[in-house]
Amino acid sequence: MSKSFIVNACATIFFVLLIQSAFAQGNRLLRKKLPCQTFTLYLHETIFNGTNAANATSTAVTNATGISNFQFGLVVVFDNPLTLDRHISSSPAARAQGFYFYNMKTRYNAWFAFSIVFNSTDYKGTLELMGADLMDQETRDISVVGGTGDFLMARGIATLKTDAVEGFAYFRLQMDIKLYDCYY
Amino acid sequence: MSKSFIVNACATIFFVLLIQSAFAQGNRLLRKKLPCQTFTLYLHETIFNGTNAANATSTAVTNATGISNFQFGLVVVFDNPLTLDRHISSSPAARAQGFYFYNMKTRYNAWFAFSIVFNSTDYKGTLELMGADLMDQETRDISVVGGTGDFLMARGIATLKTDAVEGFAYFRLQMDIKLYDCYY
Amino acid sequence: MSKSFIVNACATIFFVLLIQSAFAQGNRLLRKKLPCQTFTLYLHETIFNGTNAANATSTAVTNATGISNFQFGLVVVFDNPLTLDRHISSSPAARAQGFYFYNMKTRYNAWFAFSIVFNSTDYKGTLELMGADLMDQETRDISVVGGTGDFLMARGIATLKTDAVEGFAYFRLQMDIKLYDCYY
Repeated sequence: MSKSFIVNACATIFFVLLIQSAFAQGNRLLRKKLPCQTFTLYLHETIFNGTNAANATSTAVTNATGISNFQFGLVVVFDNPLTLDRHISSSPAARAQGFYFYNMKTRYNAWFAFSIVFNSTDYKGTLELMGADLMDQETRDISVVGGTGDFLMARGIATLKTDAVEGFAYFRLQMDIKLYDCYY
Repeated sequence: MSKSFIVNACATIFFVLLIQSAFAQGNRLLRKKLPCQTFTLYLHETIFNGTNAANATSTAVTNATGISNFQFGLVVVFDNPLTLDRHISSSPAARAQGFYFYNMKTRYNAWFAFSIVFNSTDYKGTLELMGADLMDQETRDISVVGGTGDFLMARGIATLKTDAVEGFAYFRLQMDIKLYDCYY
Repeated sequence: MSKSFIVNACATIFFVLLIQSAFAQGNRLLRKKLPCQTFTLYLHETIFNGTNAANATSTAVTNATGISNFQFGLVVVFDNPLTLDRHISSSPAARAQGFYFYNMKTRYNAWFAFSIVFNSTDYKGTLELMGADLMDQETRDISVVGGTGDFLMARGIATLKTDAVEGFAYFRLQMDIKLYDCYY
């Protein structure tokens, strides 16, 4: 009977370790694969057209080059409000500060790098993003490569969707942000 | 004899936990230190010189400044094909979309930020890269700071090597990419 | 008595697993939350003003736009020395290579992306940084999003503090760098 105790004990240990190991593995994968935080922000860009300096939140800093008809080489610097709903008049939840440029000869296509700067009672800190805005796709992902404050070392993706375009003076992007590393 | 059962059981537990702990540590270090994916891509850049708009894949968007003779301040936007071999006529495996600028007074030296955009049956998604291209070194490393799609949150390095330079209108870079975090 | 052996053994196993689990969790959190490496560097920028080409380490590559009085849209490319103390004449510990631009209409505010390039007996490799330099705050954090060489895949933050401003031709930033992921 004492032998069966050992056998039982060892079997129990083995089983518990196996389960624990599986859970540990599972947790790691889950932590990596499933977002730990998601939220949606709307980016409003009002582009300087020479007459709207009071309202404009972005401006071209170079000229488009002669290489194509799709603004290839045009660099834009922006400080755009981000809101929780679609209304540009809503109180900004954060600001997007950065730049983009058009970089395709045969259609409109842009490359973005910017920070989302939070400064509210909800969040303080920043997220850093960069990536290709493949404008001919309905949704496209760019990378969240870092963060500070409440978003210390955040990583993940932002799914961009063009939500509205009004001539050359205004566009709105929906940004669904998914963070997979959350340390706070 | 029952006492020795407990002693044996406890010793066994301790030993198993020790081994498991060592393996867990070992796995983590191995996962971090050894690349989980490596591949080589060749970047082909054909620079717009005023007459080659049909072939050009990049163009300067600012002028070099008077601060040096090595193009300090010249900013270039590109949408370059990436191939699996050295031939520019090979079918592109991906595209490199981004920009660089020259930033040294005493020799040629550049700073890059770009995305590698995959869209093939093999891979879908992007890699985000940035870093200093110390052109006087035979090989130099830049950072892979993020990714999307098949390369969700990728991290690692890309080792750059100038593979060919043809006057001011064409150069080819060999990029050996090593990813250390693979989640897919 | 044999029953109590099993009970005791199981209790011991459970307790040991609990402790181990708590330590594992604790270690992970500690590794993430506490910096594994910190150091301070001073960035010296001497801006090209048309007459100081010999000393200048940065230069504007676009013009400020008419959208505001705070240089909105002005892009600056730099290759600045980094020293361990406040003296610009000290031997550089590294160089900061990258760019920034001003991007706020109502006050001075900048967005940075650059690499810190080490090449000394102490360190070889690079750190990649990007983020919003909210110049009206006494200290502000930007993200360390990657690294190479001795700083392979480094992540963390750099706390910036304006240490000196001398007219339009020189400024000095204190950068307190905290790395949370250290693999070397």
